Amino acid sequence: MSQEGLVFKMSCPDAVGLVARVTGLVAAHGLNLAEVHSYSDVASKWFFARLRIESADGSGDFARLEQDFSHFAGEAQAEWSLRRSGRAQRMVILASRETHCVTDLLWRRKFGELPAEVPLIISNHRDCESLAVAEGVPFLHVPVNAQNKDEAFREIARRCEEAGADVIVMARFMQILPAWFCARFHGGVINIHHSFLPAFAGADPYRQAFERGVKLIGATCHYATADLDAGPIIDQEVVRVEHFHDLGDLRRLGRDCERLALARGVRYHVEDRVLLHGAKTVVFRD
Amino acid sequence: MSQEGLVFKMSCPDAVGLVARVTGLVAAHGLNLAEVHSYSDVASKWFFARLRIESADGSGDFARLEQDFSHFAGEAQAEWSLRRSGRAQRMVILASRETHCVTDLLWRRKFGELPAEVPLIISNHRDCESLAVAEGVPFLHVPVNAQNKDEAFREIARRCEEAGADVIVMARFMQILPAWFCARFHGGVINIHHSFLPAFAGADPYRQAFERGVKLIGATCHYATADLDAGPIIDQEVVRVEHFHDLGDLRRLGRDCERLALARGVRYHVEDRVLLHGAKTVVFRD
Amino acid sequence: MSQEGLVFKMSCPDAVGLVARVTGLVAAHGLNLAEVHSYSDVASKWFFARLRIESADGSGDFARLEQDFSHFAGEAQAEWSLRRSGRAQRMVILASRETHCVTDLLWRRKFGELPAEVPLIISNHRDCESLAVAEGVPFLHVPVNAQNKDEAFREIARRCEEAGADVIVMARFMQILPAWFCARFHGGVINIHHSFLPAFAGADPYRQAFERGVKLIGATCHYATADLDAGPIIDQEVVRVEHFHDLGDLRRLGRDCERLALARGVRYHVEDRVLLHGAKTVVFRD
Amino acid sequence: MSQEGLVFKMSCPDAVGLVARVTGLVAAHGLNLAEVHSYSDVASKWFFARLRIESADGSGDFARLEQDFSHFAGEAQAEWSLRRSGRAQRMVILASRETHCVTDLLWRRKFGELPAEVPLIISNHRDCESLAVAEGVPFLHVPVNAQNKDEAFREIARRCEEAGADVIVMARFMQILPAWFCARFHGGVINIHHSFLPAFAGADPYRQAFERGVKLIGATCHYATADLDAGPIIDQEVVRVEHFHDLGDLRRLGRDCERLALARGVRYHVEDRVLLHGAKTVVFRD
Repeated sequence: MSQEGLVFKMSCPDAVGLVARVTGLVAAHGLNLAEVHSYSDVASKWFFARLRIESADGSGDFARLEQDFSHFAGEAQAEWSLRRSGRAQRMVILASRETHCVTDLLWRRKFGELPAEVPLIISNHRDCESLAVAEGVPFLHVPVNAQNKDEAFREIARRCEEAGADVIVMARFMQILPAWFCARFHGGVINIHHSFLPAFAGADPYRQAFERGVKLIGATCHYATADLDAGPIIDQEVVRVEHFHDLGDLRRLGRDCERLALARGVRYHVEDRVLLHGAKTVVFRD
Repeated sequence: MSQEGLVFKMSCPDAVGLVARVTGLVAAHGLNLAEVHSYSDVASKWFFARLRIESADGSGDFARLEQDFSHFAGEAQAEWSLRRSGRAQRMVILASRETHCVTDLLWRRKFGELPAEVPLIISNHRDCESLAVAEGVPFLHVPVNAQNKDEAFREIARRCEEAGADVIVMARFMQILPAWFCARFHGGVINIHHSFLPAFAGADPYRQAFERGVKLIGATCHYATADLDAGPIIDQEVVRVEHFHDLGDLRRLGRDCERLALARGVRYHVEDRVLLHGAKTVVFRD
Repeated sequence: MSQEGLVFKMSCPDAVGLVARVTGLVAAHGLNLAEVHSYSDVASKWFFARLRIESADGSGDFARLEQDFSHFAGEAQAEWSLRRSGRAQRMVILASRETHCVTDLLWRRKFGELPAEVPLIISNHRDCESLAVAEGVPFLHVPVNAQNKDEAFREIARRCEEAGADVIVMARFMQILPAWFCARFHGGVINIHHSFLPAFAGADPYRQAFERGVKLIGATCHYATADLDAGPIIDQEVVRVEHFHDLGDLRRLGRDCERLALARGVRYHVEDRVLLHGAKTVVFRD
Repeated sequence: MSQEGLVFKMSCPDAVGLVARVTGLVAAHGLNLAEVHSYSDVASKWFFARLRIESADGSGDFARLEQDFSHFAGEAQAEWSLRRSGRAQRMVILASRETHCVTDLLWRRKFGELPAEVPLIISNHRDCESLAVAEGVPFLHVPVNAQNKDEAFREIARRCEEAGADVIVMARFMQILPAWFCARFHGGVINIHHSFLPAFAGADPYRQAFERGVKLIGATCHYATADLDAGPIIDQEVVRVEHFHDLGDLRRLGRDCERLALARGVRYHVEDRVLLHGAKTVVFRD
């Protein structure tokens, strides 16, 4: 993963020969395909691919390959991206009072499970501040309330941009994003919702689950959109519960689902493994 | 499980000393407690218990114990039941076109996983008829359509009663039960819904799940009530799906969830392991 | 899956450009790639691929493509196979006293979950005979004992060949295969072992698991080799157990693991999704 | 959990009336049973129970009940313990180079998921030192090597005792404990082994799993005994792996299994939910 290389991902209208053409570009430069994923969706006649490319000798002169990809993607009318796989993505974390997801993301980033750096943590509370300080991550406190909500989010947006955020992760941020915010960072804001969506969208999902008497609870990692808890799902996790688990137990058990689903979803995103497909996602997981 | 014995279950307002009193009745007769389960729900101040009782020498003279339980339950204002654990419950299966759940239930009953006998299979289609015949189970074809629906269900109810049904299992029956039917067999009709409820209630849940792009699909075994797919949940099962699974794949993967959740839920019920607790269940599983 | 098409699978020494070349052959004939899977193993420098190919108009004239694949595979020094995806594989089932896996495989074959036909069930006991008869599958009783073991297996081998077996499935057959038998059907005999291998190889694994006090039990679907329970693993399944589960409970819970792991493993095999990689497998699952 | 109360656990030869007698003692003092668990093992004729007791008014005068329990346990020839449920157990952590389990345990203790305090972390390396410092936990570096091993463990044992350890948790400590150490803290040392035991005991289990080609990897939380990786199992966790996961991926995926299995196992232990039953455990989980 950490070797010098490129990650190319694309989606476009399906056609005969796309895999051959795109992999042929790589072969023409004598480069290795460390990973190849492709998927053709029959119903929508849409094609998705992700290539991870390495040079055999580690020389990493990819300039001409980039031109070829650009040319090819133009012809295929593709949405595409190309990224040096060596570079960590910049992830701004939005937090609130709960610390478990922030702790987990920071650990994974520090110990090599998550190829990302965290230039900034923004929170409407101070619960995560000491954690940020201990890890040497800048912490910004932006109180959010009914009166200042739009202003607060303009401040948050501005700070995310200043920090050069590639991705914004809502680690139990618990705020409904303004529509303009979702649009501005479209496809770049990841949320963890503490239920197996679409069940129990909205407020206090563990209480909803407890009152319904479900035998499984869960968590959903998804892209934030203007529709609350309705964005494209990246990953989900569940755990069994029984009648003797009270609301506190559900929250405790659910936190493990949240940690796992969020960590996986963020990793897939920062490794360019997720492609949007309408209201759904294609996830070329490893 | 097959030894001669009794299963006692009860629920009542909570009070100090209930476990001691009910287990004391058993001890007073010199009988063994093969299983003891109890649960006190703090919020509702309600008490639930299930005892499985065996005699040390297998003599099985339980008559006086039954009197003691009856007296105790009356004092405690309990809902209760007492059953010889040797007797298989009579399970009428309602089926439609799909055969997997019926096949699975019949196998488990035949080979000792499910302490139940099946006196009758009723279906609005003939797809399960040869299966019933091969297993020597009477099969009744009752067509159901918009015109005859109430009449058809009166026929089904009458046949269930004639067959001495202890429990009615909807093995993908795919019909909405009339409210009077649910009331008549209250707490005795088990359904398998092919989603992890409350997500995707109603028609064609796999299509709903497919269109929403969830990464988990599932099945829910619950008691049928007049509110469609909203009855108390007994058990649930899920399986991971990915972007490359089409609707047919979801149906295929989901069938395994349906088989497992239904088989477990029915077994818990016929072993008297399920107690209703408002809109929820207490399941003393083994 | 049932559409007319081809499934091509191959493995060979890794080299630059293999994906491009093999997918290019398909594109050159104007054919669709319904599925593309490839994997490069870094340590062994080996390449694995599986293509599922369909014609856009369903015409299915693949003769020249077959020549191209053959030529390419020769150059690449590949082990390869090419199969019409419309044709069901012929699966001979070896059974013993337990009926659950046989019941499950026959159901899945009959209702379209498993693209296979079953020309013959062979058993050293008669427990599955009525099941075979009800499904219209020829049943052959071949008693196996210490005296006749080699002779019995020669009979079994001969009957498998006469039946045109593409694959032999040991559905809890409970016999150790002679080495010559494994060699004769190398890569074509699938076993289900009732533990999560390599734990509890050999006899009575549920008892071994019970005595060790594990909190998970499982089942392993693997290719049979001359080394008992040591062949390449295709799939595994586990389920939680607790202290109150006795040996009978472990067997009951384990049967569901066996059904699921065997059904998946067999399906992967008959859909040409499994490639041998030394003592391991590459499984291009869907 | 945090309310004032008592946790009583016991195991003894089975007899008629044990549940009634032990719960009767609680009722006689007018106290509530917040949880009741019991289990009779048929094969060994042994009885296990755990009671969590609360006073209705929170007064918490349990002195006479303690006398009654002591008297009863003596008569029943029981191993037993009684603990104020308000008091956190003192947990000394033994660590080495890996930080994930230590981080996880410290988080859970700090945020109320684990009723324990950590008076000391001992490690043969310094990797966890900054983590301990940030959390305000004393850290002791005790190098262990072939020359000083016995001496080092005498130092570790002495420090554990000085710290008043109720439990010693090996959070990927990676050292084989001397037999005298296991004996001295019998039933009080918990280890996390990074495989689903009994598969892959001993060194480098992820490499063993990788080379065997299993499709599931896992972790096992167990009591440390003089037999390496053979002590009574408390909990296990597994995760699916596929052919494309390399050894680094197995380690990454396995870490989540380790965190979960260790956290659950330690919680069960410090909440007095685990009773030894020969080479196995009875776990009255919640």
